[in-house]
Amino acid sequence: MTYANVSTFDAVPGKRDELVVHLTSSKPGLTAAGCLSYEVGVSEDQPDTVFVSELWTSAEAHRGSLELPEVREAIAAARPLISGRSGGFAFDVVGSPLRAGDR
Amino acid sequence: MTYANVSTFDAVPGKRDELVVHLTSSKPGLTAAGCLSYEVGVSEDQPDTVFVSELWTSAEAHRGSLELPEVREAIAAARPLISGRSGGFAFDVVGSPLRAGDR
Repeated sequence: MTYANVSTFDAVPGKRDELVVHLTSSKPGLTAAGCLSYEVGVSEDQPDTVFVSELWTSAEAHRGSLELPEVREAIAAARPLISGRSGGFAFDVVGSPLRAGDR
Repeated sequence: MTYANVSTFDAVPGKRDELVVHLTSSKPGLTAAGCLSYEVGVSEDQPDTVFVSELWTSAEAHRGSLELPEVREAIAAARPLISGRSGGFAFDVVGSPLRAGDR
């Protein structure tokens, strides 16, 4: 079942864009690991926050991806740039109005 | 700029699945309006919550879609099924590790 993972990371003030660089760096293994979509973004409303919205073939695929060397490296590089506050949620996709027949 | 909109809707107890039906009902006009992705889901951790993760060609496209008859009808039908608590956030996409060259 498609799995969605949505996260917010509060960057250390002034480090947001550096955090974006790590989160958007090329990670060729993600697609093979089951990543369907991985969108990183920012908002004028929350200038120190980085947002991530991901879709995976399954929750297990997402969990497994955290072991990929390129992902572990990015997490290690990003960790000091995150001020500690993070949020988000995850859910199992049950349908879409764009493919209404798949429920 | 691609725009992401992520929402949570707390359903009136017992009405979650009915709310999912309205949110996943076919809305053919969405793609033409600029909808790139619209994923609806649930989580065992929050049994009364419906999650939505959307991607649009722009924030204006998303805003404009709220005027589509099929969207207005779905919102009107869904409103009584929502207990009032909702959350989420929106952001402008700046990149993805799946297409690292587009920043």
